[in-house]
Amino acid sequence: MSGKQENTQKRRLRLGMVGGGEGAFIGEVHRFAARLDDHYQLVAGALSSQKDKAERSAKVLGLARSYVDFEQMAQQESERSDGIEVVSIVTPNHLHAPVAMAFLKQGIHVICDKPLSATLEEAEALYQVAQASQAQFLLTHNYSAYPMVREARSMVKAGKLGKIRSIQVEYVQDWLTHSLEQTGNKQAAWRSDPSQAGIAGCMGDIGSHAYQLACFVGNTQAKEILADLSTWVEGRALDDDANILLRYENGAKGHLWASQVAPGNENALSLRIYGDKAGIEWHQESPNELIYSVLGEPSQRLRRGNGYLSEAATLVSRIPSGHPEGYLEAFANLYAEFAEQLLSSTFNPDLPTLATGLHGMRFISASVLSSQRNGQWVSLEH
Amino acid sequence: MSGKQENTQKRRLRLGMVGGGEGAFIGEVHRFAARLDDHYQLVAGALSSQKDKAERSAKVLGLARSYVDFEQMAQQESERSDGIEVVSIVTPNHLHAPVAMAFLKQGIHVICDKPLSATLEEAEALYQVAQASQAQFLLTHNYSAYPMVREARSMVKAGKLGKIRSIQVEYVQDWLTHSLEQTGNKQAAWRSDPSQAGIAGCMGDIGSHAYQLACFVGNTQAKEILADLSTWVEGRALDDDANILLRYENGAKGHLWASQVAPGNENALSLRIYGDKAGIEWHQESPNELIYSVLGEPSQRLRRGNGYLSEAATLVSRIPSGHPEGYLEAFANLYAEFAEQLLSSTFNPDLPTLATGLHGMRFISASVLSSQRNGQWVSLEH
Amino acid sequence: MSGKQENTQKRRLRLGMVGGGEGAFIGEVHRFAARLDDHYQLVAGALSSQKDKAERSAKVLGLARSYVDFEQMAQQESERSDGIEVVSIVTPNHLHAPVAMAFLKQGIHVICDKPLSATLEEAEALYQVAQASQAQFLLTHNYSAYPMVREARSMVKAGKLGKIRSIQVEYVQDWLTHSLEQTGNKQAAWRSDPSQAGIAGCMGDIGSHAYQLACFVGNTQAKEILADLSTWVEGRALDDDANILLRYENGAKGHLWASQVAPGNENALSLRIYGDKAGIEWHQESPNELIYSVLGEPSQRLRRGNGYLSEAATLVSRIPSGHPEGYLEAFANLYAEFAEQLLSSTFNPDLPTLATGLHGMRFISASVLSSQRNGQWVSLEH
Amino acid sequence: MSGKQENTQKRRLRLGMVGGGEGAFIGEVHRFAARLDDHYQLVAGALSSQKDKAERSAKVLGLARSYVDFEQMAQQESERSDGIEVVSIVTPNHLHAPVAMAFLKQGIHVICDKPLSATLEEAEALYQVAQASQAQFLLTHNYSAYPMVREARSMVKAGKLGKIRSIQVEYVQDWLTHSLEQTGNKQAAWRSDPSQAGIAGCMGDIGSHAYQLACFVGNTQAKEILADLSTWVEGRALDDDANILLRYENGAKGHLWASQVAPGNENALSLRIYGDKAGIEWHQESPNELIYSVLGEPSQRLRRGNGYLSEAATLVSRIPSGHPEGYLEAFANLYAEFAEQLLSSTFNPDLPTLATGLHGMRFISASVLSSQRNGQWVSLEH
Repeated sequence: MSGKQENTQKRRLRLGMVGGGEGAFIGEVHRFAARLDDHYQLVAGALSSQKDKAERSAKVLGLARSYVDFEQMAQQESERSDGIEVVSIVTPNHLHAPVAMAFLKQGIHVICDKPLSATLEEAEALYQVAQASQAQFLLTHNYSAYPMVREARSMVKAGKLGKIRSIQVEYVQDWLTHSLEQTGNKQAAWRSDPSQAGIAGCMGDIGSHAYQLACFVGNTQAKEILADLSTWVEGRALDDDANILLRYENGAKGHLWASQVAPGNENALSLRIYGDKAGIEWHQESPNELIYSVLGEPSQRLRRGNGYLSEAATLVSRIPSGHPEGYLEAFANLYAEFAEQLLSSTFNPDLPTLATGLHGMRFISASVLSSQRNGQWVSLEH
Repeated sequence: MSGKQENTQKRRLRLGMVGGGEGAFIGEVHRFAARLDDHYQLVAGALSSQKDKAERSAKVLGLARSYVDFEQMAQQESERSDGIEVVSIVTPNHLHAPVAMAFLKQGIHVICDKPLSATLEEAEALYQVAQASQAQFLLTHNYSAYPMVREARSMVKAGKLGKIRSIQVEYVQDWLTHSLEQTGNKQAAWRSDPSQAGIAGCMGDIGSHAYQLACFVGNTQAKEILADLSTWVEGRALDDDANILLRYENGAKGHLWASQVAPGNENALSLRIYGDKAGIEWHQESPNELIYSVLGEPSQRLRRGNGYLSEAATLVSRIPSGHPEGYLEAFANLYAEFAEQLLSSTFNPDLPTLATGLHGMRFISASVLSSQRNGQWVSLEH
Repeated sequence: MSGKQENTQKRRLRLGMVGGGEGAFIGEVHRFAARLDDHYQLVAGALSSQKDKAERSAKVLGLARSYVDFEQMAQQESERSDGIEVVSIVTPNHLHAPVAMAFLKQGIHVICDKPLSATLEEAEALYQVAQASQAQFLLTHNYSAYPMVREARSMVKAGKLGKIRSIQVEYVQDWLTHSLEQTGNKQAAWRSDPSQAGIAGCMGDIGSHAYQLACFVGNTQAKEILADLSTWVEGRALDDDANILLRYENGAKGHLWASQVAPGNENALSLRIYGDKAGIEWHQESPNELIYSVLGEPSQRLRRGNGYLSEAATLVSRIPSGHPEGYLEAFANLYAEFAEQLLSSTFNPDLPTLATGLHGMRFISASVLSSQRNGQWVSLEH
Repeated sequence: MSGKQENTQKRRLRLGMVGGGEGAFIGEVHRFAARLDDHYQLVAGALSSQKDKAERSAKVLGLARSYVDFEQMAQQESERSDGIEVVSIVTPNHLHAPVAMAFLKQGIHVICDKPLSATLEEAEALYQVAQASQAQFLLTHNYSAYPMVREARSMVKAGKLGKIRSIQVEYVQDWLTHSLEQTGNKQAAWRSDPSQAGIAGCMGDIGSHAYQLACFVGNTQAKEILADLSTWVEGRALDDDANILLRYENGAKGHLWASQVAPGNENALSLRIYGDKAGIEWHQESPNELIYSVLGEPSQRLRRGNGYLSEAATLVSRIPSGHPEGYLEAFANLYAEFAEQLLSSTFNPDLPTLATGLHGMRFISASVLSSQRNGQWVSLEH
C-alpha cells in the first residue's frame, strides 16, 4: 500500500467544534473523521447553545474548554497560545455562515458542513469576509473524497470519456416519506424548518451533494438549470423531491433527481457520465467500485486499491483492495487532506472550498426560483 | 406451471406480414414471437417493396403467397376464403399508418410495430379509420408483456405502493454514439432519416417504449411534459438523446431519459415508481426480477415463476422460476394474447391498442414541440 | 446480427416424441425448442403409456399419429415413407435407454433428455447399440448451449485463462426442501423414486448438468472424484444434496455442489474457472453475461450479442445485445444445431453426444459409490 | 442511531503493540481500529526486532516507550504504574504464541491477530498459560464483527433458518497467483515461509477466517473434515488453495474453499447457510447487506442500520443505513467490545477467544493431515 496512511508526523492540529452536542448525528461523524488518521486533537467546543447541554457534552468528550457562545469562543481561542487552529461547524444550516464568519475573522481555519448557508445572500457575504481572511476553508462535500470518485474525476480530466454529453446524477432517500418531523425526530425537524434549514429542504440537504458530485467529477458546472420541486408530505414547509434539468458549461446536458420520499432508497447517491468515447457509473452504496465502459468494449469494473488505478484514487485509499472502505473513511480523507494543506501550504485542488459552497448556494437558489416560475431556465452565471 | 402454454387448440390464425424481408431485424423477431406458442401460421407477405427481394424472402420463409404492393395484398387476401386473418406490420415508421389503414379497411386485424406513425396527424387519421372497422389492432409495446412488468402493474393497481408520487423511467442505448447511419448500417439509416422515421429519432424509437411502460405500470398517463431534446452526433437529422420532465394525471411527477448515445448501455430500459407506501424497480436486462420495497421493511426480490406472484404475472409465464425467460418470450406473449382475444372476443385490457399508439404519438409530438420552445410545459390533453 | 437465424431452408425434419403428455414439464420445453427456429415438424408421438391420455394429448397437439407403445412406434414409423426422422425422448429417466435403443435400432435419430439412463449398465448397453446404428444421438445438456457458455469454452480452449487450476461448479435449487413428492407433485414424485429416476436423485437430475457444464467449458473431464451425498428429507429414497471433490484430467481440482434443498435458490447453476492467467464466472440465472478477470486488470463483463465476442457465441445468438435471451433459446440452440448436423452431415463438436451421456453416468455412479464408502476417491477412468 | 458510539467515558486503555513497524500492513489496521472509537491510547511498542527500525517507527507514531525485546517489554510495562494494560500482537504467525505467553504471564491483556500460532502444539501450550492468567485474550477474527454477520448469527440462533443442513463458505483471493514471494514482497514472503507462517499457508492466512466465520454464524463447529490442499505455484513451500468437506456438530454438512490463486478475487469471503426453513447469504465485499430467503417467499435484502434488525447488528453499527461501513469499522468493533469487556468485566460471548483460536489451530492442523492422507476424514474432537 502506497496510499494514504495514518498521521506519522505527530503534529496534531488543535481542533474546536461548534454544534455536535448530545443527540447530533453529523458532529459525531466529523469526530470519527478527525480521529481516524490522527491529524487533529479536539480541545474546545461550543457544542450546544444551551449551557448545561454544552458542558455535559464537552465533559463527555473530554474537551479542555467548553463555550456556549461561538463568538466568544472564536475570540478567546484566538487569543490563547494553545488556542484552536481549526474549527468544525456542524450546526444546522442557518448557523453555518455566522459561525464561519466569526472564526474566519479571527484567522481560524474553518471546516464547515454543507450547504454553505441558509440563503444565497449570506453565502455572498461570507465569501467577502473570507477574501479578507488568511484562514482557509473546507466545505465537507464528503462524497467527493471517495477514492473511486477521485478516479472518476481523474478519468474525465484525462479525456478518457471523450467529449462529455450527458450527466445523470441522483440522490435518493426514503426517511422523510412520512411526516417524521412531527414525531419528535430532531434530524427531520430542523431539516424541514425554513428558519434552520434555509430556503430549501431536500435540495439543500442532499440535492447540493448530488450537484457538487456531478460538477466535481464532470469537471464543469451548470450554466443554467430548470427545476420542478415538490413537497409531497402534507404540512411540510420545504421541498422533499426535485427533478432538475441541467445544461453544463462544457456543453453537456443532464438531469438531477433528489428525493427524500422514495421508499426503498437509503442513501442512494449515484452518478453516471457519458462522453463520445466512454461512460462511467458510480454508486455511493457500493463505493469501492466504478464501472467504466468504452464504446464497443466490455464494461470494466474498476475497484479501489488496485495497481491499475491512478494516483488520484491511491492517495486517498488506506487498505488493500477487497477490504471495503466506507463513508467514514471518505469523510476522513477530507480532514486528512485539509490538515496536509494547512501544514504544507500547498493548495489541494480536489478539496471543496468556500467558492464551491457559494456556487452550490447559487444552484439551490436557482432551483427554487425556477420551480416558482413553473419551470423556466435560470442562469447560474452572475 | 399453471401459466401460459403452447397453443393446444390447433386453430392457428392465418398471418401475413408487411416488411421484414432480408436484412430486417424486427420482422424476424415478430416471426419468432408468432411461432413460439404456435397460434399463427405465416402464409403471405409483402416482405419488401422490391419485387425480387420480396419473392426471395417469401420463398426462403416458405410463404404461400408473395406480394410487392401492400394495397394489393390487403385487397386480394380479403377476397380469398383462405386469406390472412391478421397482418403484422414491421416496416419503417412512415409506412405503419398507410399499411394499417389498408388492412383495417379490409377488415383484417393488424399487429403493428411502434411508434404508431410518423406524425401525429397520421395517427389521428388512422384512429378514425379504425373506428369504422371491425378489425382489431395490437401495437407491439412488447416490454409491457414481461411477466414482472405485469406484476408491477398489478401491484400499482392494487394500491400496494400507496399514492404514486414519483415515476423515473429511462431507456438508454449506445449504438448510435457515432454516426453509424453513414456507414451503411440499415437499421441506423432509416431510424435517423425523417422521411422514414418521422418527426423524432430516439424519442420515436425508444422514448415511446419508455413512456408507454411508465404509463402502463403506473396506470396513468402524462398531463403535461417539458422536454430538452438533443442531437449529439454531427450531421444527424433527428434527436438522439432526451431529458423530459413529466406531470401525470394521477398527480405523480417524474423524469424520462432516452438516449442512444450513452456508451455502456445496450438496451437499458428501466422503471422505478414510488408511492407513499412502497417503491418498485424493474430493469429490462434482468427481466425476471422486480424489486419491491415497503417503507421500513427490507427490499424484496420478486422473481418470475413463483407461487407468491399474482395471476397477472403467472398468465404470461411459461417455465419454472430460475429458468430465464427473455425478450422473445415477452414479445410472444403479445402475439398469444392477441390470438386469444381474436378467438374469444374477450377484450384484454393489458394489450396496447391503437388508442395507446395515438396517445404515444401525442407524447412524441409534444416532446418535439416543447424542446423547440426551449423547454415549456406542453399539454398532452386534447 | 450475423448470428443464429430462423430456419430459412424450409426443409423441416419430421419429429416424433416419446413422453411429454398432459402435465409433463420437459416435453413442452422440447416442443418450444423444436418450434422456435422452425427446423422441425412434430408429427407423431407416444405421449403417454396410457392410451386415453396419449390420444388426448396427441389430439391437442395436432399430431398426425398417436402411439401407446414406443416399440411399435419405432417400428411403424421406420416403415413409412413419411415416418419420423428424429425422436425426442422426454420420459422419466428409467425409460431413456430402452426407448433410445428402440429408435436407434430402426435408424431413427434420437434427441434424449439427461441423464442418459437409470444405471451405468444400461448406459453401456445403449452405447453398444448406438455404435451399430447409423442414427445420430443428441443429449439435451441444454445449459451448454447458452451463447456465453460457448464463449467461455472458447476462451478456455484459446488459452485465455492459462493453465486451469480450479473449477468450482454448483447447481442449487430449493423446490425439494420439504417432502413435495408426498403431496402429489408429479415432477417431485418420479424424481425421488429409484424405479423411475435410477440410482441417484439430485445427482441425476441436476448434478449431472453441473458436471457436464464444468467439463464442457473446462475442456476436460474428471479423473477421480470423492463424494459426500446426503438425503435431508425424511423418507426420501434418494440423495437431495451432494458435495463432491474432483480432480480433473488437465490437472485442475475443484468442487461440485448440487442441492435441491437450499431455500432461496431457484435454478442456480453457476460455474467459475480459474487459471494462472485469468478467471471466468457464469451464472445461469443471468445467462447473457460472463465475467472475465485477467490477473491484475479490472474484471470485464462480456455480454451476449456484442461484436467483441467470438464466433462460438455469435453463432448461437439470435437478437441484439441487451435483449435478453433465456432458457428456451438455449434449448432451441441444441435443436437447431442438431438439425443442421443431420442435414449437413458435418459433426458439431459442441453438441453433447451419447459418449457424453455415458461418461455422465460414470460420474453419477462414482458419486454414489464414493459416498457409500464414506468418501473415498473413485476413478472415472475405465 | 442507538448503536455503537465513540468512547464518551474518557477512560482510555493504555495500549502497547508488538510488531507493526515500518512496512507492516496489519499493524496499521490495528491502530486505525484502536483509534476509531477512542477507547485506547497507544503508548508503548516493540514494533520491530531491529532496534533502529523499532525506534524510528515508535518515534513516528509518537510512542512514549520503545522496546526491541518483547519479553523485556512485558516485564517492564507490568512493573510501571502507567504501564500498558493491553497489548496488540501483529507479528507474523510464529511469534503470536511466544509473545502472547510473555504478556499473559505478566497479567497484561492480549489482542492477537490470527491464526493463534504456528502449530497446534504451541496453541495448546498457550492455552495452558492463559488458564493460569487473570488477563483476557481477544483473537482478531475481524470479519465476525461486521454488523450483518452479527445479524446472521442472531438469526441462526433464533431458529429463523430452521434446522441447518448446508454451510458453504469460501475465502478467495488472487494476489498469490504468481510467485510474489520471490519478488521482494514482504507480505507474501512471510506468509509462504513455514518458519514464519507455520504449518499452513492459505489455510492459516484466510482458511482460518472462513472456518471461524462459518462456525460463528452457524453456531456450531466441525466434527470432522476431509481436505484436498494444493500448492499451485512452483517452488512455494505451503498450500495456496484448498477444498475441504466438513461435517458439523449440529448435523450440517458443507464445503470450504480457500484460495489465493483465483484471478479476479480480491478478498472474496462469503458465507451461505441453509436450513429447512430459510437460507442466508453474506459477502464480505458488500458487507452492509445480508440476503435472507424464507422458503416460498421472495428473498429479502437486509441492510445495516435499519430498524428491522436485531440488537446484535445495531450494537456494532455507527452510522445510518446507506452510509457504508467497511473493514476498519468491523475491526474497530472488536477493539471497542474488548475495551468494554475489560472495563465492565462482563463477558461478551461474540468475541473470539483463545479457545476459538485453539479450535482454529485444530482445524488447520486437521486439514493438513487429511490432505497428507490423500483425503480422509479427520476428527476435530479431542
